[in-house]
This record gives sequence, C-alpha cells and structure tokens, in this order.
Amino acid sequence: MGKMQMTEERRKQQNKIKRVGVIGGGQLAWMMADAAKKLGVDLIIQTSHKDDPAVSIAKDIVLAEIDDYQATTKLANSCNVITFENEFINIDELSFLAEKDVIFRPSLSVLKPLLDKYEQLCYLQDLGLPVPNFWEWGKEIEPLSFPLVLKARRHGYDGQGTFIVKDIESLQSQGNSEFFIQEFVPFDREVAVIAARGVAGEVKIYPVVETQQQNQVCRRVFVPDENWELGEKIEAIAHSLLNSLEVVGVLGIEMFITQDKKVLINEIAPRTHNSGHYTLDACQTSQFEQHLRAVCGLPLGSTALKARGAVMVNLLGYEFGKKNYLTKQQQLASIPNASIWWYGKTESRPGRKLGHVTVLLDQENSETMGREAKAIADQIENIWHS
Amino acid sequence: MGKMQMTEERRKQQNKIKRVGVIGGGQLAWMMADAAKKLGVDLIIQTSHKDDPAVSIAKDIVLAEIDDYQATTKLANSCNVITFENEFINIDELSFLAEKDVIFRPSLSVLKPLLDKYEQLCYLQDLGLPVPNFWEWGKEIEPLSFPLVLKARRHGYDGQGTFIVKDIESLQSQGNSEFFIQEFVPFDREVAVIAARGVAGEVKIYPVVETQQQNQVCRRVFVPDENWELGEKIEAIAHSLLNSLEVVGVLGIEMFITQDKKVLINEIAPRTHNSGHYTLDACQTSQFEQHLRAVCGLPLGSTALKARGAVMVNLLGYEFGKKNYLTKQQQLASIPNASIWWYGKTESRPGRKLGHVTVLLDQENSETMGREAKAIADQIENIWHS
Repeated sequence: MGKMQMTEERRKQQNKIKRVGVIGGGQLAWMMADAAKKLGVDLIIQTSHKDDPAVSIAKDIVLAEIDDYQATTKLANSCNVITFENEFINIDELSFLAEKDVIFRPSLSVLKPLLDKYEQLCYLQDLGLPVPNFWEWGKEIEPLSFPLVLKARRHGYDGQGTFIVKDIESLQSQGNSEFFIQEFVPFDREVAVIAARGVAGEVKIYPVVETQQQNQVCRRVFVPDENWELGEKIEAIAHSLLNSLEVVGVLGIEMFITQDKKVLINEIAPRTHNSGHYTLDACQTSQFEQHLRAVCGLPLGSTALKARGAVMVNLLGYEFGKKNYLTKQQQLASIPNASIWWYGKTESRPGRKLGHVTVLLDQENSETMGREAKAIADQIENIWHS
Repeated sequence: MGKMQMTEERRKQQNKIKRVGVIGGGQLAWMMADAAKKLGVDLIIQTSHKDDPAVSIAKDIVLAEIDDYQATTKLANSCNVITFENEFINIDELSFLAEKDVIFRPSLSVLKPLLDKYEQLCYLQDLGLPVPNFWEWGKEIEPLSFPLVLKARRHGYDGQGTFIVKDIESLQSQGNSEFFIQEFVPFDREVAVIAARGVAGEVKIYPVVETQQQNQVCRRVFVPDENWELGEKIEAIAHSLLNSLEVVGVLGIEMFITQDKKVLINEIAPRTHNSGHYTLDACQTSQFEQHLRAVCGLPLGSTALKARGAVMVNLLGYEFGKKNYLTKQQQLASIPNASIWWYGKTESRPGRKLGHVTVLLDQENSETMGREAKAIADQIENIWHS
C-alpha cells in the first residue's frame, strides 16, 4: 500500500480542491471535462482501459481496474477528493481508505445502501418513498401474479441483468440469490430527474424528463416531461431522498408513472445519469458541472432551462467495428439547434452508447413542442440508421 | 492491394489445404483449435483485437477489422481457403477477391441471401420452408396484430437489435428501414439443429436440441430435444436448405415449435453456432471439426452422440472487470462428466459469453434424463452466480 498523506493536511485541502480523482473512465467522466476546465480543476482518472473516452481529457491516469483498491490508494495520494463515474466498485475495500481520511464524494455511507438494488429498494421503502412491490430471492411472493421482473442485485446496466418472467418455472430456472424480484409495473410512462446536493446541504433539482427505453436501454429523453401535475410530488421525493442520504453530488432518479398517475421509484443511480445529458446544452449548469461543484465544495449552480424544451437521443452502436461515422455526425450537426456529443470510443458494438444528440426547442405551446420533439427524434434516428 | 497468387496454383491447393484463413477471432474460431491440430491444419485469423480468444491458437494473425477487404487480400495470400467465424463482413468487397479465385467456404453466393435477416426469410419462404409471417419496413402489415417483433436486418446478435413492440406508436417510433417486422410466435419451445454439407454434397445432421433463451440470449441447451416426433420434419428442412444453398460448411438453424406442434424457422446462422457447442464433448465429430472438414474438402465425420444426452450451459458475464474466476471454474469442473470451456477473454462484461459447461448424461429413461439435465443446469448456474 502506498504512502498516505497526513490527516490535517488532507482536511485543509478540502477548502482548495484542485485535483479530483474519478473512478471510471467512460463517457460520464469524459463529459466532466468542460466543467473541470471552467472550474479550474484537474481530473485524475482510474480506469483499466487506455482507450476509454475520459483518458484523453484526464490530467493523469491510474491504469487499473476500477475495483482495484491499491490503485485507488495511489489515486487518493494524487488528488484532494475522489468521486465515481460508475458504481461497480468494492465498497468494503474502499472503506479502509475512508478510515485514513481519504475523502469520497459521495461518501461511502451514501453509496452503501444504493449499490445493491434490493437494498436500495429497502432503503427507499424505509424512508416511506413509493416503490414497486419487491421480494428477496427465496421469500414468498405475495400476491404471486405474473409477469414479474427478475433483477440482478448488482452489476446490471442497460438492461443486462433484468428479465421479465412469465411463469413460476421460468422464475425458478432463471433466478438465483444474486437476483431479487420486483412487481411488473404496466406504466403509462417512465420519467427521471437529476438532483444535486452540495456540501452545505443545499438541494437543486432539474426539470422532470420523460425517458423512453427499448429493451431497457434509454433511447430518447424529452424535456420537460409534459406531465406537469406530478412535478411537485417528484421534487418532494427528490428532496426527501437527498436530505436523508446527506449525499454530496448528483443522483439520477428513475421512476414509473402508473396509469392511475402514481409515482413509483424504479431505480436510483448514485452519479450523473444518461437522463441528464440534455443539461449540457439545455441548462444553466450541466449535471456534470453540478456534480463537480458539489464534489469540490463549491456552491451549486442554477438548474434552469436555457430553452423552452429539448430532446436528447442516444446514438447506440448497431454494428461491429472501429468507426467514427463522420458523415453521420455531420448530417446530425446540420439539424438546427443540435449539439452532437461523440464519446470517441474506439469501437462500435450493437447497443453500445457511442454518443448523443441534444436539440433545443422553442415552441410556446407544449403540445406543438411535443410533436416537434418526436419528429426531431425520428429524424435523428433516421440519419443515424440510414 | 497485395499481390495475388495465380489461378492454377490456387486450384491445385484445394486438394491439399493446410492453411485455413478465418475471418473473426472470437470463441467460435478458438474452438476450432483442437480440430485443426487433429486434421493437421493451421488457422490464420483476421481480427482487430489482439486479445481475442483465437489469437492464442492461431498460426498467424492478420490484425485488422473483419470487414477490411485489403487485410483479407493479405489473408488470402497466406492461406488456401477462407472461412468465417461471424457474419459481420462486407460481401460486396469480398466478391472482388472471389473473382480472383480466392476460395471462400461457405461461398459468398451462399452467404449472400443469409446475411440480411429479411432477405434470409424471403429466401427460406421461396424454398417453401416454414417461417413466421414477416414484413419489410414500410409495407402494410396484414393482419396487424400486436405484439410484433422488430428485428434489425443486419448486425443483430445476442438479442441486440430485436425488440418486441406492443402498439403502432412504439412500432413507428422504434423502427426504421434498417429493421423488418416479424410475427410474434408464442412458441411452446425453441429448438435448434446444426447441419453440415461437404464439398462432395453429402449432408450430415446433428441431433435436434432444445435451446432456452433469456432476453434473446441462449442460456441452456438440452440434448437431445425431447420432442422426438418432429425430428424427421426438422431433418427434412435442414436437407432441403443445405442442398438448395449448396453450402460447404456448417449452419445453425434456430426454430420455434408452436403450441400446435408446427415448426417455424426463426433464423439461420451461416457458421458454427452456440447451440452446437455440446458437440465438442457429446458427439463423435464436433461442429468445429465438421466445419473444418467441409472447408478443407475432407469427408464429413459422424454426428452420433457419444452419450445418451447432454446439457450445455453458457457462462455469461455478470460484472465488469478482468477476472478469470478460477475458483468457480474448479467448482464447475468437479461436477461429474462436466467439461469446462473457458474462452480466455481478458475482460468480463454483463451478458458477455465467457465460457460454457457441457455435462454428459447417461439416463436410459428420457424423463429422468430431462429432470437430471435441469437439475445440473441449475447447479451450474448456482455455482457460477454464487
């Protein structure tokens, strides 16, 4: 294990954070680059892939697996605070570092109830927040009514590790104790919200957005969600959650809206989130800047929209190979008010997130805007798949 | 473009094939290694990943994208015949090589109607083979009855590019001309068969197996399928298909068995196939040896089972990281009559195929064997996920 800085020195550093360690090197770390520059902060990235998007924008790299605790010790020695780009970490090992006064933001105690999705739902339920019915593997499911959702407790992503099962035989043959069971919610729509909490405890909440998934992978985000009447309820949920957790940083909250207009929390991501990528172009402060602000102990920025609305479409790989799709990027860039974010991944793979496009909208009438947003999303997907 | 060998010389080489070029370096190429050794053949692999499983077993490597036609020219110059490990190739570019007497097995004319899944279904339908109803994008769907299946015409794999849509709005928002539409078949079970055809036109068919998918990814294969009465019908389909195609090499045929016991072809893979991995341990000749035999112009081997039955379980990644799961491999190896095939991928990712286990079964009673097979599959998955 590497040499550890002294406690007093480390405490002082909190007040002048200039170097932020980030565990994970994917697009979520990469999209912090502009904000880091603006705030005068260097990012030091721990990742095992020298081709990862964030490697190109990092001041320094610790080239190691993201759950490699010795590498994180090295990372800790070269920066003032450590944050996370993804949740595939080993919290027990990191707690040794936390005991030695390495500062994690969010803290490990915030992450602890969130990393395992079964424990996450227990935590939310204990807070009195609305969640679907759910059951631990091996417990009696009451009422037993199919379909049910079988979800991996950890390491699920983009629909990997989520299965809809139709009968008891499928449930028994497909599941095991690495999974838990969740009620299937025949939702009217799915929505999400990004919320941030600063070191001083202030909470800022972004507009609620509608997310559209295909095979559990996010494809489109519509800003704002048209379903205004639930905005207040969702904001209250976010406030309650962030204050209970005492989180420092940004969270993504994914929710179902049921046909009878109930809100049910589906999942919490303890980090910046795909449903908040639109904030890069459409908000006064992007979720990435907001997260860095929180992590660096700076006051949070405004979450206000800079346009009446926006639509974000993910560019998902649809073939194998090392391609940069320059022509398609150019065509997408020619859509009025569009920003293309291309993550610079060296390799395409069907379903892989290669980039996204956000288009700002300026219709006064929300119905007209909804139609325009849909038409633009269609146009983007047609260019991308042509 | 590289130097091209002369035609006459190349023709002669057909009779003494010692070097086989393989486009693609994944586990399907890697599993040819034992057969290549047995047959005294060298494998030269074209892949863009120096970490790919098959790199370690290759005599030589052409390090390039699999659809890089200039690299394939180089590959052609260093081997007697070229075959394919996957279908993500550019057939138009390769046809220039075929015109210069580079030998592809299967030939490009065999691959041509199969690479695009819409064209594949058209081809099968024209042959009079049973397929689900299907429609080109933009054509009238008649009868219009949901759910429908939206499938990518190309580059789909392991469920990527297949979507079940529930209404016309989802269909319109999710689809485009890169997709086609297929009737949703509420099948009783899914089955598959591996069939091979040699240079001389002989056809060999392996036992029909039951395949169990989760989110369109194969998890378990039961050998043989219990549904004996359809064996003859499926064999007839395979014969008809292979003879019409005049394919040289192995094909995987995936089928639905409907609740009223009809056979419908879902998809053809013009290569060795996951549903045939059990043949490595359970058959006189593995599908990989069979394919190499066909490609090298050797007589095909026996497809007979060496045991009364077998069960194959895929080991799918469930987390991120560079891991080799040695303890789990050892536990799996201690199951009686089990063979572990570990593909040596340097990196795990949820859903990624990292290996498979085949267990041979020797029960006389097919019902008892079915129960044992299921219990063993459960045991394997419990070890793997524990």
